[in-house]
Amino acid sequence: MPHPNDPSLRSFVPVDPSSDFPIQNLPYGVFSARGLAPRVGVAIGDFVLDLWELEQDGRFGFREIGVFSQPSLNSFMALGPKVWSSTRARISELLRADHPELRDNEELRQQALVPMRDVRLHLPITVAGYTDFYSSKEHATNVGVMFRGRDNALQPNWLHMPIGYNGRASTVVVSGTKVRRPRGQLKPPNVELPSFGPCKRLDFELEMGVVVGQGSAMGEMLTEAQAEAMIFGFVLLNDWSARDIQQWEYVPLGPFQAKAFATSISPWVVTRQALEPFRVSGPAQDPVPLPYLRQTRPNNYDMALEVGLRAGAMNIPRTICATNFKYMYWSSVQQLMHHASSGCAMNVGDLLGSGTISGPEKSQRGSLLEISWNGTEPVELAPGVSRTFLEDGDSLVMRGGCQGDGYRVGFGEVEGTILPAE
Amino acid sequence: MPHPNDPSLRSFVPVDPSSDFPIQNLPYGVFSARGLAPRVGVAIGDFVLDLWELEQDGRFGFREIGVFSQPSLNSFMALGPKVWSSTRARISELLRADHPELRDNEELRQQALVPMRDVRLHLPITVAGYTDFYSSKEHATNVGVMFRGRDNALQPNWLHMPIGYNGRASTVVVSGTKVRRPRGQLKPPNVELPSFGPCKRLDFELEMGVVVGQGSAMGEMLTEAQAEAMIFGFVLLNDWSARDIQQWEYVPLGPFQAKAFATSISPWVVTRQALEPFRVSGPAQDPVPLPYLRQTRPNNYDMALEVGLRAGAMNIPRTICATNFKYMYWSSVQQLMHHASSGCAMNVGDLLGSGTISGPEKSQRGSLLEISWNGTEPVELAPGVSRTFLEDGDSLVMRGGCQGDGYRVGFGEVEGTILPAE
Repeated sequence: MPHPNDPSLRSFVPVDPSSDFPIQNLPYGVFSARGLAPRVGVAIGDFVLDLWELEQDGRFGFREIGVFSQPSLNSFMALGPKVWSSTRARISELLRADHPELRDNEELRQQALVPMRDVRLHLPITVAGYTDFYSSKEHATNVGVMFRGRDNALQPNWLHMPIGYNGRASTVVVSGTKVRRPRGQLKPPNVELPSFGPCKRLDFELEMGVVVGQGSAMGEMLTEAQAEAMIFGFVLLNDWSARDIQQWEYVPLGPFQAKAFATSISPWVVTRQALEPFRVSGPAQDPVPLPYLRQTRPNNYDMALEVGLRAGAMNIPRTICATNFKYMYWSSVQQLMHHASSGCAMNVGDLLGSGTISGPEKSQRGSLLEISWNGTEPVELAPGVSRTFLEDGDSLVMRGGCQGDGYRVGFGEVEGTILPAE
Repeated sequence: MPHPNDPSLRSFVPVDPSSDFPIQNLPYGVFSARGLAPRVGVAIGDFVLDLWELEQDGRFGFREIGVFSQPSLNSFMALGPKVWSSTRARISELLRADHPELRDNEELRQQALVPMRDVRLHLPITVAGYTDFYSSKEHATNVGVMFRGRDNALQPNWLHMPIGYNGRASTVVVSGTKVRRPRGQLKPPNVELPSFGPCKRLDFELEMGVVVGQGSAMGEMLTEAQAEAMIFGFVLLNDWSARDIQQWEYVPLGPFQAKAFATSISPWVVTRQALEPFRVSGPAQDPVPLPYLRQTRPNNYDMALEVGLRAGAMNIPRTICATNFKYMYWSSVQQLMHHASSGCAMNVGDLLGSGTISGPEKSQRGSLLEISWNGTEPVELAPGVSRTFLEDGDSLVMRGGCQGDGYRVGFGEVEGTILPAE
């Protein structure tokens, strides 16, 4: 591999080694700035590269005009993996330190490179369908032990398929969107009748989201290669959860209003191509999955993930979880193969949550339900400040990324602050 | 009320008294004919009234041009209840026997009235989100008795809220679309390990679908009046179900692939306004619902529903269920109030399945699971032809409508024929 100081691996845009957005990353997002309508951009260092400016200037050879003028990535994603690949190569070329085309064109550079501090970031995709999986063995086991005891922790089906459910696409929001504490029916076990009111056990779930960039036809199953080719990229995802609403409503049809009020994602979609150097094998799968779920390649990623929680009076968030995406038992490719297995059509813009990403260590638990062990072990955030679940005014921040040799491929952050129920 | 022979209640288009589509109905759909692109129409007798032709001819005064040129009702629905109401009044006027405007304009009539036998009907809405409820007490009780015994038939939460789950919007299809038998993981109770293969217990569920025509903001709850005003209309809905896949996958997150392969709806959306004369109260609710679910008006409808099943060799379907929408315990308005109660945003084009509509009698059971009592009581369709679940080549037909004085407000049919798994 070339050294990171190789000009083909550096941009003329200055990028700090600690930045999430070196030329090796080039994540896509939707931004607005200078009073103009939202359009597609790519993050590079502390700037956003305005792809619509470049497209209008004839720097891409798309037959479909205007894909980067849209307020979502869907039109671009619909063009397919070959275009994703050639566009990434072209953007990389335009940003390279040794390529003069944009570097030496001051007028175009001024137009196309917008300081990140001046932009507003929007939801990057129009979410067609939102599905949420439950694919961390450690998370499923922790929850199982809490509610059913150690002997029955994993349900009998869990080791045989990626268990998942359909979530609510209408409330997927971008990082920074405030989250109102949901209301719902609550019936603690010691109370006879349910009441309706603000959730008292508000939680986060640390997840990754797969952004599906190509559809599949109704009735068709997917091979490993087909499933992988449909994955455009990944986002960081916070699957906000109302544990008390969930506990009362979820039998027998699963979580509904407990998960419907908000799901936050990162503004930046990191492409599958950018994550390629960080592929690793997941945990050994025993029993061996049924043939339709078998994978022949390492489909996990070595990606460090952190969660910080800032209570009202604190200045900076306290880290309450540090885990890794590599621990997931079922890979994103397996999730997609399972999703289509009944003949379910997949669409451009589908978002698949990985499920809470917990690891084997106590410090790697990806939800307050697990961290506080169902509210019995408060976590100390600062002297005199502790939490079992989220309180009004709390701010929850997720970060994640992969460490390369001298560079980092990251997602920025997913932040959400809790507003009181109205 | 005026007599049905009153010219204001008759159309100059001939309508048989047994037709689902008299001037009192005027359901909306999307059709194509004469090689032209799909657009919005209204059914009247054996004709489809081409609303895009009328719009182009200046017969509606919309500020937004082209809502009827779209291949879905969503743009029209987005205009809101006042426009729905004035448009319905205008269409009714244009079709009245005593109104000369269209009746006496032969050229426009030739353009705008297309024989139904010449049209292809399409999915009428772009489904934003698909939610499926479980709101028939008789259905929930039947299923509960089968799987948990009579003493624990209803789950503790069932009488307190309309239980529902998010379904898969990507596979909602229009009547007439063939349905491929899904594959999935099957693990009968007497077998140790799951296998993957074609579903062996393929079922239908007779439901109504609410078409949501107006959105609500994230974080907002809905009053009864707000919820009702958001309902554009209703479709007949077949929630195809793979019982064996469901049985193995559904704990703890609910149905997923068992319901993801197909959901069929009628091509015609009957408006809430057309159903107004058929409002009735639903069953008494005991316990009294929590205040956020209380309703002050009769929100059920007296609508007869029938299911016919035609096995390969039969000429006409045999009726296997005859029930009524009025039996539903939770009304559509209550479903919508509950859906938004956590702060879940509703969107134009959301589709809410009512849940299987069973009634108190054995002949009123809305699924084969109930009709064949979990496969133990085959239903005879013709001499020597019986079914417990659906077989390849079977055709399932649903019909429904409300009987007025001399006219009928109906939905046409929802038909689906089972193709073998590939």
